[in-house]
Amino acid sequence: MRMVDIITKKRDGQELTDEEISFFIKGYVAGEIPDYQASALLMAIVFKGMTNREIVTLTDRMEHSGETMDLSAIEGIKVDKHSTGGVGDKTTLAVGPMVAACGAKVAKMSGRGLGHTGGTLDKLESIPGMNVFETEEEFIAQMNKIGIAVVGQTGTLVPADKKLYALRDVTGTVESLPLIASSIMSKKLASGTNCIELDVKFGNGAFMKNVHDARELAKTMVAIGNSLGRDTRAILTDMAQPLGYAVGNSLEVKEAIDTLHGHGPEDFTELCLHSGAVMLHQAKIAKTFEEGEAMIKEVVANGKAFEKFRELVIAQGGDVSYIDHPEKFEVSKNVIEIHAKNSGFVKEIVALEIGESAMRLGAGRETFDDVIDMSAGIVLAKKIGDKVAKGDLLCTVYTNKEKEEYEPVIADIEKAFKVVNVFVEKPKVIEEYIH
Amino acid sequence: MRMVDIITKKRDGQELTDEEISFFIKGYVAGEIPDYQASALLMAIVFKGMTNREIVTLTDRMEHSGETMDLSAIEGIKVDKHSTGGVGDKTTLAVGPMVAACGAKVAKMSGRGLGHTGGTLDKLESIPGMNVFETEEEFIAQMNKIGIAVVGQTGTLVPADKKLYALRDVTGTVESLPLIASSIMSKKLASGTNCIELDVKFGNGAFMKNVHDARELAKTMVAIGNSLGRDTRAILTDMAQPLGYAVGNSLEVKEAIDTLHGHGPEDFTELCLHSGAVMLHQAKIAKTFEEGEAMIKEVVANGKAFEKFRELVIAQGGDVSYIDHPEKFEVSKNVIEIHAKNSGFVKEIVALEIGESAMRLGAGRETFDDVIDMSAGIVLAKKIGDKVAKGDLLCTVYTNKEKEEYEPVIADIEKAFKVVNVFVEKPKVIEEYIH
Repeated sequence: MRMVDIITKKRDGQELTDEEISFFIKGYVAGEIPDYQASALLMAIVFKGMTNREIVTLTDRMEHSGETMDLSAIEGIKVDKHSTGGVGDKTTLAVGPMVAACGAKVAKMSGRGLGHTGGTLDKLESIPGMNVFETEEEFIAQMNKIGIAVVGQTGTLVPADKKLYALRDVTGTVESLPLIASSIMSKKLASGTNCIELDVKFGNGAFMKNVHDARELAKTMVAIGNSLGRDTRAILTDMAQPLGYAVGNSLEVKEAIDTLHGHGPEDFTELCLHSGAVMLHQAKIAKTFEEGEAMIKEVVANGKAFEKFRELVIAQGGDVSYIDHPEKFEVSKNVIEIHAKNSGFVKEIVALEIGESAMRLGAGRETFDDVIDMSAGIVLAKKIGDKVAKGDLLCTVYTNKEKEEYEPVIADIEKAFKVVNVFVEKPKVIEEYIH
Repeated sequence: MRMVDIITKKRDGQELTDEEISFFIKGYVAGEIPDYQASALLMAIVFKGMTNREIVTLTDRMEHSGETMDLSAIEGIKVDKHSTGGVGDKTTLAVGPMVAACGAKVAKMSGRGLGHTGGTLDKLESIPGMNVFETEEEFIAQMNKIGIAVVGQTGTLVPADKKLYALRDVTGTVESLPLIASSIMSKKLASGTNCIELDVKFGNGAFMKNVHDARELAKTMVAIGNSLGRDTRAILTDMAQPLGYAVGNSLEVKEAIDTLHGHGPEDFTELCLHSGAVMLHQAKIAKTFEEGEAMIKEVVANGKAFEKFRELVIAQGGDVSYIDHPEKFEVSKNVIEIHAKNSGFVKEIVALEIGESAMRLGAGRETFDDVIDMSAGIVLAKKIGDKVAKGDLLCTVYTNKEKEEYEPVIADIEKAFKVVNVFVEKPKVIEEYIH
């Protein structure tokens, strides 16, 4: 078998065999197939796509390109969730404890933020002392003890994805459904849970810009997961505006705490309920979706969800006094309010602009070497569909940057808001449930 | 400027600027742009193509990626010809001396054969002592003295093409009109002649399998050459069957000698006349195409064309006694005749099959390391459209291989001939003249 023939075959639009896909992944990880042949194949895949069978095989071979986690020592059905990334997406922080409080085993493998989207690991690390790096043994022990753990991706899982992702990033081959789906799913599969819930976001603040592409990606990933023996389901959610009100690490932790107490933002609460109900159904704890929602409402009302979050923070070394007294979180030295210049209804809050602005205020990374300012970010006061009067607060900006640095950002945030003088309906958060 | 942005731009079907193309070629030759980014761009070009402006710029930057030859010390208009490669294509050996005998300066840069097509350098080297490697000074001196020289491509010309071609060969990016055209033309331009005649072959024995693709390639190359200040013209010629009768190095030299004496095969003679007339018109020696043909007929008839070939062989160190007495060329130890199994008209002589068979008999290289048997090859006795009777000689096979090696080749050669019992018209050699 020769790599050049595999490239040519895909270039000409033919379907690769399982053997050819195995040859590529094994050879590439072993360093026997050079980057220049891999990138040519990736570009051919960008143009010619892959059949579902090819994608399933690719994902499977990527999953098994390194170690995989064995969670059999954890009792019960293990569930994981994955979000394709959005602005203000603190879902894991709230829904994880909610679902765990209902008895599900939540084994959450999380990443760091880059660009305009944040990462769950960064958000959690805004809690002083919080440690998200553990050994597999510690992880399993914590899972058996409290039913929830958040870990970073370990270095030995899915080496094929690490190598391929780095190559895609510099060869213009990121935007490809088969490559995106296999990258996400190989990592989820290698982390060893029985169930996977995918939150595929669409809109300007998401990786997938329109609902059609998001639906295709979601369907493909659900097909991969189920083909490879995991109960996989997806929800399509709107990312035209930020999720909830808070964007920025400790700001989002505070909003997650509010939500666990039962008084979070409407859209974010709805997403947590829906997402959590899916996970409880996957974990066979709730017999129906409605039962799942009711269970989550109950653990929020009786304080068990919040208590589970406290347990998680304590187990992972965090200072729980910040969770009990969120006012302890440091507030940035500059707090700037942005007010409405005219009356009407909020028509747009461009999530991409808000996310990028938060990053520029210090809340995110442009490159992996950047250091995050945990207190920086933006807290919205209005959402799309809200009525505003001239002079009303639209959002509050938090930053430790100097005035000359943050002033152009403030101007961009102002531009992200669009207020019109006709009624605007509130958009729905959840577009579709794919299972 | 970032290479990944250039790749993405081409991937998305946009036109690259001159600056972007320069950045790529300079950076790639300098080793600053890695192979894996170059191959991704090449694959994107395979799918998205290039505009004529992009191709001209790419060719120009490739031409100037290394040294270029300065032929200004040679008096008069310098002409070069290039064939895209075929089976039995010994045109340079005959037409070069014909045109030079008429007074044109023929500066011929030639290559070696690989696969089923032969190379002019190999054919010339079948003449004992013949040396095709010279310094630029020796080349210029010979050009001024006798008006013709054949040289191999020197290592310092067009490094971008050498590097890109090696990469294309292993990344499935050979088959791309902009890449083929820029590769051929950058070398022709760097060799410094004023005029370029292109013989673009089509058919199963050629690189371009159909006349449509050949025409596109020819038009593109003609446009490139003329845009970059060289009188460039092309002829489209048929390569469904081998050119002339002889296929194999010394066998083809003998046929070229016959043709210089005025008794070569009909199709090959026609091609030489036509091709030579174009060159004489380009060199402004003939005012019309018809005058050019008449001049060539004259130098063949009066022996000046043959005498020019003798001068070329002597100048480049060859033993001219082989030219004067072609029977001196060694004959291979095995000479096998293939006869017609039924009567009728020859419908097909599959050039690709004949070319590959000749290679397997020892006449060509499968890899660049293979050593050529100069005496091996095939001499046809019939061509398409010829009437045959059962038992007539179809061709003679020459080889020094052992019986168990050549027997399967003989079987394949037999299969390359198709005799039918209806009249078959002789195909025309020259399809079109593009200028």
